[in-house]
Amino acid sequence: MLLRRAPLQTLCFVVWATLLAPGLDSGQRPVKRYEPPPGSGVPTFAVREPVLRLQPGDVVETQTLSGGYYEVPGGAWPGEVGPFYIEGATPDDTLVVKILRLRPNRDTAVSTHTPGFISAVAGDRYTRVLNDPIPARRYVWRLDRQRNLGILDLPTSARRLEVPLRPMLGRVAVAPEGAEAFGGLWPGNFGGNMDAADVTEGVTVYLPIFHEGALFYFGDFHALQGDAEICGSGLESTAEVTFQFDLIKGKRIAWPRLENETHIMVVGSARPLDNALRIAAVEMIEWLVADYGFDKWDAYQTVSQLTEMRIANMVDPLYSVVVRMPKKYLHKP
Amino acid sequence: MLLRRAPLQTLCFVVWATLLAPGLDSGQRPVKRYEPPPGSGVPTFAVREPVLRLQPGDVVETQTLSGGYYEVPGGAWPGEVGPFYIEGATPDDTLVVKILRLRPNRDTAVSTHTPGFISAVAGDRYTRVLNDPIPARRYVWRLDRQRNLGILDLPTSARRLEVPLRPMLGRVAVAPEGAEAFGGLWPGNFGGNMDAADVTEGVTVYLPIFHEGALFYFGDFHALQGDAEICGSGLESTAEVTFQFDLIKGKRIAWPRLENETHIMVVGSARPLDNALRIAAVEMIEWLVADYGFDKWDAYQTVSQLTEMRIANMVDPLYSVVVRMPKKYLHKP
Amino acid sequence: MLLRRAPLQTLCFVVWATLLAPGLDSGQRPVKRYEPPPGSGVPTFAVREPVLRLQPGDVVETQTLSGGYYEVPGGAWPGEVGPFYIEGATPDDTLVVKILRLRPNRDTAVSTHTPGFISAVAGDRYTRVLNDPIPARRYVWRLDRQRNLGILDLPTSARRLEVPLRPMLGRVAVAPEGAEAFGGLWPGNFGGNMDAADVTEGVTVYLPIFHEGALFYFGDFHALQGDAEICGSGLESTAEVTFQFDLIKGKRIAWPRLENETHIMVVGSARPLDNALRIAAVEMIEWLVADYGFDKWDAYQTVSQLTEMRIANMVDPLYSVVVRMPKKYLHKP
Amino acid sequence: MLLRRAPLQTLCFVVWATLLAPGLDSGQRPVKRYEPPPGSGVPTFAVREPVLRLQPGDVVETQTLSGGYYEVPGGAWPGEVGPFYIEGATPDDTLVVKILRLRPNRDTAVSTHTPGFISAVAGDRYTRVLNDPIPARRYVWRLDRQRNLGILDLPTSARRLEVPLRPMLGRVAVAPEGAEAFGGLWPGNFGGNMDAADVTEGVTVYLPIFHEGALFYFGDFHALQGDAEICGSGLESTAEVTFQFDLIKGKRIAWPRLENETHIMVVGSARPLDNALRIAAVEMIEWLVADYGFDKWDAYQTVSQLTEMRIANMVDPLYSVVVRMPKKYLHKP
Repeated sequence: MLLRRAPLQTLCFVVWATLLAPGLDSGQRPVKRYEPPPGSGVPTFAVREPVLRLQPGDVVETQTLSGGYYEVPGGAWPGEVGPFYIEGATPDDTLVVKILRLRPNRDTAVSTHTPGFISAVAGDRYTRVLNDPIPARRYVWRLDRQRNLGILDLPTSARRLEVPLRPMLGRVAVAPEGAEAFGGLWPGNFGGNMDAADVTEGVTVYLPIFHEGALFYFGDFHALQGDAEICGSGLESTAEVTFQFDLIKGKRIAWPRLENETHIMVVGSARPLDNALRIAAVEMIEWLVADYGFDKWDAYQTVSQLTEMRIANMVDPLYSVVVRMPKKYLHKP
Repeated sequence: MLLRRAPLQTLCFVVWATLLAPGLDSGQRPVKRYEPPPGSGVPTFAVREPVLRLQPGDVVETQTLSGGYYEVPGGAWPGEVGPFYIEGATPDDTLVVKILRLRPNRDTAVSTHTPGFISAVAGDRYTRVLNDPIPARRYVWRLDRQRNLGILDLPTSARRLEVPLRPMLGRVAVAPEGAEAFGGLWPGNFGGNMDAADVTEGVTVYLPIFHEGALFYFGDFHALQGDAEICGSGLESTAEVTFQFDLIKGKRIAWPRLENETHIMVVGSARPLDNALRIAAVEMIEWLVADYGFDKWDAYQTVSQLTEMRIANMVDPLYSVVVRMPKKYLHKP
Repeated sequence: MLLRRAPLQTLCFVVWATLLAPGLDSGQRPVKRYEPPPGSGVPTFAVREPVLRLQPGDVVETQTLSGGYYEVPGGAWPGEVGPFYIEGATPDDTLVVKILRLRPNRDTAVSTHTPGFISAVAGDRYTRVLNDPIPARRYVWRLDRQRNLGILDLPTSARRLEVPLRPMLGRVAVAPEGAEAFGGLWPGNFGGNMDAADVTEGVTVYLPIFHEGALFYFGDFHALQGDAEICGSGLESTAEVTFQFDLIKGKRIAWPRLENETHIMVVGSARPLDNALRIAAVEMIEWLVADYGFDKWDAYQTVSQLTEMRIANMVDPLYSVVVRMPKKYLHKP
Repeated sequence: MLLRRAPLQTLCFVVWATLLAPGLDSGQRPVKRYEPPPGSGVPTFAVREPVLRLQPGDVVETQTLSGGYYEVPGGAWPGEVGPFYIEGATPDDTLVVKILRLRPNRDTAVSTHTPGFISAVAGDRYTRVLNDPIPARRYVWRLDRQRNLGILDLPTSARRLEVPLRPMLGRVAVAPEGAEAFGGLWPGNFGGNMDAADVTEGVTVYLPIFHEGALFYFGDFHALQGDAEICGSGLESTAEVTFQFDLIKGKRIAWPRLENETHIMVVGSARPLDNALRIAAVEMIEWLVADYGFDKWDAYQTVSQLTEMRIANMVDPLYSVVVRMPKKYLHKP
């Protein structure tokens, strides 16, 4: 079924790429397809044998892993897809990942309240308290993909929620520095489980590279998620996703960056949120200095007055803050 | 000059109030004018003799205090205006403050970098470090009030910023609980220096009441401010402001709430940001339960998926986070 | 009864002062007695009319306030004693407060668990959570003053605790800077409710001065307290206390300092604990540089290797950390 | 040289074990010797092939790794020793590690200030600031092993420090849960780089077990360290160490625990320090309930009044707090 749709997807992508992504001559390349085998999900962001090798410029249609958590109460997490090896990628470069398409491929999404595990507003593994745990809950949302709606009946509250979906990838990552291996719940300077609602169709993700080939991972599709993901889960579901990979040779960045038509963004991850913001804001200031010709203190003033700062997650082992700078103020008159 | 414009303002207000604020029959009342005398600014949010006594429903045209900081390098802060005594207000009630109009009344705005004082991304009084302090800076923005633009020339960076203004009040407060007196830099459950960009023309602010008469204060106009106000100041300027006051008798709230046409919001203030978010999110969940008929855990799920959470300030003695819930999901089908 | 004991106390004090406090010629001065009238407790650290005027060098026998909380379940807090006005004290000076004697004067002490109010390990006003509150508890300890023991029977746990008392004053303060008035629960750069177990008999407290006369306050006697005071209260009781006041003219300090026979100490108060430690450690480094001739980076190395850092409280509006530096390494060989 | 001393060490150990560790009949077992080969240090706490297999009750003489950092400016970290596989260890059990002997085996120790890397009181990788970095420093302490002194000449400060050593192991760990691999700088529920000054000769360390064989690691010897290790390093040196391993079958713990003659202790690691304290204090309360028959709320009261809480590190990726409970109050009368 997926293969049958591929020609149309390719066409869509070519149109999209031609109109919106003029910097990449991706229209010339054949689109590759990668089907992650069932059970192939990995539990960590780490150096391991690649499942796919790609050239800069390559476009790949693929999907997140299914099963377990998405299907049955108490079901196991299926893990992340990857790693993809990008030929020529070295730690001196920056990995460029364009999300050309991101669409749910399932009719439900699940969100769970898991007592004692992770929560922004209840005792959990890190904020340990003496209070009794909150009750477990499992909400199954219907995804009306025609109307792009998430629908949840709340009989106890005598109401139905019907909400436009905002599909996003909770996890995009490279293998982290050195020999470390972080579980799928972790975000960091390698990307990972940032749970940033801005990682959506049409965005370009820039990631630092710590190993030859970059070793790209992805997963944790959310059909929708509120800021901070305070209950510990969004509308967890599965998706088809089309990436285009590229490299910026000879450019190093310290933390993940995002770009869409209107904004450049930095995602900082740390605890408490204070430090996540510090990371993201300082990285943004350094970006304005390095790439846009700002004096350091002018950049400080500019970021102070012109950015949005939203909380991406306050439940993961590190919390994430996104600093968003409008691009219209960055081009010299 | 201000008085001469009053009839037009009143007309504007009547139109506004008729169209947008149907719940208040304020059109019937005469508009009062309060001119804060030069030098009358107060340094704390505290119980003190009222400067004005008002009835619920009253509309007041007034302005923030001028002088000092806004005019000369190193100039002193002119302080806040107030308190206004609202007849009939008791600690069992909620104060309602509609910001009917908020407009800059000066052609410049100032933003300063003050080493060692307050900053989200440099050593300051609270985050004390051994590093050398950053350099002091004072940026004077021009305010083009016809075009609603803030303009800053950055010769060092060879660029000019021209940015739409988003006028807001940094400080709206009642006298805090008990005998405490918090300096003007403090936010808290009494409101105060929340520096929330959502406190703008058209918003309704709900504040808890701790003393008879509520004792309302305001000040700290920003022509524009980025989230988190990371350098410690927005485009600090002065403004004309028109408030309408009211009471919700017999209703108590714990933290400041905001409402505009599209959202209900809660502002939590604490350190670190984590706790500010906890306060705001739990208060929002309790709001959905108390006023909108949500089951507690359904409210938790709803807030998790549907809210925006932005950082209002990360420089004041307490940090502030705003949780924004779209109203369209709150009305039962 | 208290007056009858005064001559003996004076004798004790003279002996103590002669042996242990040679820097102060307090032996020459008559000992003053101040009895705080019942109901005279104040709710805030703030500028207000002094209850007593003293000269530098003066010795005062007094006591903490009784009643309410210490006596009946749900009883009100009796408030702090003060302010004492020290003649000649100005903001250019440092206030010196020697605690010559500190002894419980009651046979019981109370410790309460107050759900939702303050706790390091349960949801409270600042760390708001959705979990159900913990149960309220009120423990009444017996104080065996002859044997210097606190005794608590825990029938549910089938055991009795018998623990040596370590009497301390939770609150010693000056009036804070400017017009601010902090409730008795607050610590800060003015001292206040630091809940530092090192503020005990034999210690000298150094406080910055923000107003003429310094305006000294004290209260919140603990017969014993664990570090961090995690349930929100120590063995709360009342005490007789003898202070000697002095000034260091022309010396300014930024945060409260302590000194006993073996250590110099700094108490930093902020949230999170990280920032309390930063304040205390940087102040200690600056102390070594200013008074002991250390190079700044040598002081950093020295403080890194030789200090103890204990958590005084993690329940108050600001948390407090004490950095303790052994004096024996500070005197040049 | 090390082998030559082995008989004496064994004797010392037998004496020690007989007197102080009556619960282990280790006197019957031959002492094993493990020499970590130069260059064999590992960069992560993770599941990997064991370097040694041991039976419960085994005593092992070994040493930390030498080279690099300890010898030359800019030298690389030699890594940790391990893993040791303990036969019969399963995730249902607790690993018991007695540190029978811990002595420096080198005449110098090094402490470095590394700008921008880790520091409690300067901008670093996590607390990113715009301030200029602090200067790099490298202090070489002499270790007088006969007199058990660390000696540092500070010519700039015109003084010499002579300080009693307090040898400790910064890192004791098991392989962490699942497939995660944390770099040597990380502490966590698996132990790791806790930098707790209480991990010294005579202490028993209890660690949770996540994999068959437990997979024990150690390293990072400090001849001395102040609380919080604020500059990012103690008196870093190398040591001989004698461990005895054992298991508590069928008992699970959640976080590392320590025990010496006078105290039981828990080490919690998280950011901010607040959460490290929460983990350690709640685990201590649960310990009193599970093993000492306390009612939960009595344990809360007891821990509140009777424990010391010291900051072990405020520089590592997670901060560590040690809660220390005197054993004398735990035995029923």
